[in-house]
Amino acid sequence: MSGFRYYWEDFPAGRTFEHGRKVLSEAEIIDFARQWDPQRFHVDPQAARQTPFGGLVASGWHTGCLMMRMMCDAYLNESSCTGSPGIDEWRFAAPVRPGDELRYRATVLEARASASKPDRGIVRWRWELLNQRGEVAVSMTGTQFFLRRPS
Amino acid sequence: MSGFRYYWEDFPAGRTFEHGRKVLSEAEIIDFARQWDPQRFHVDPQAARQTPFGGLVASGWHTGCLMMRMMCDAYLNESSCTGSPGIDEWRFAAPVRPGDELRYRATVLEARASASKPDRGIVRWRWELLNQRGEVAVSMTGTQFFLRRPS
Repeated sequence: MSGFRYYWEDFPAGRTFEHGRKVLSEAEIIDFARQWDPQRFHVDPQAARQTPFGGLVASGWHTGCLMMRMMCDAYLNESSCTGSPGIDEWRFAAPVRPGDELRYRATVLEARASASKPDRGIVRWRWELLNQRGEVAVSMTGTQFFLRRPS
Repeated sequence: MSGFRYYWEDFPAGRTFEHGRKVLSEAEIIDFARQWDPQRFHVDPQAARQTPFGGLVASGWHTGCLMMRMMCDAYLNESSCTGSPGIDEWRFAAPVRPGDELRYRATVLEARASASKPDRGIVRWRWELLNQRGEVAVSMTGTQFFLRRPS
């Protein structure tokens, strides 16, 4: 639990982290959805044409997992994070289709010291995936706990 | 887009669906997390002991994906669902550890007809995973759109 690159002090409100890019293929979209979210518009290109999406779209759980992995690579796995209580306002803001290229952006919304645990702090984030047109495709807010930098 | 078992009319407030059970193994927890959420307390049993979790715990994205799959099997893939705008209040309410047995419970919180699209309706849900002790391990609220039953 020592020697991290990022501690709570490194996440002031307004700081951003970016990561990516990643192009999602039709095969990846179908493979993920077959295991975790086999709705017809995620696994069957023919059937998807008859839905309001008009074609195959990635499962929100797929793009959410991709976002989580980019978060790990952007800052989390070099941080003193000790967990998260949850996620709010997760929005599937724009459909993600085969060939779309996604990149990750994290913004610190709020950072505060823990009232009960003097060695920890709390950070509230906005996490987003943007597509190749710069549109927000996925957004959510989430909270994480971090150890404070040892003095 | 016809011949579904469940249409919007089949989801009145208070209706519940259940599915499962599924035991998560240590190998499954590590495999999922190596791909999508390689934080030390999800992939490294030794390192996890030194964290506040005191041992390996499943990624929230893993249990979330498991919940999504149980939802598909419980009602969604037999329904007229046309998508979802998002998810709120996702809480990692209790750690999920190797050997924990999870089951799914869905409860309709609210159902209303669409004001703009007369062939559709909107359903707001509480979705949960409960462990073998009956504790809520994962909970969230989410909204889904469904076609209304053809008259």
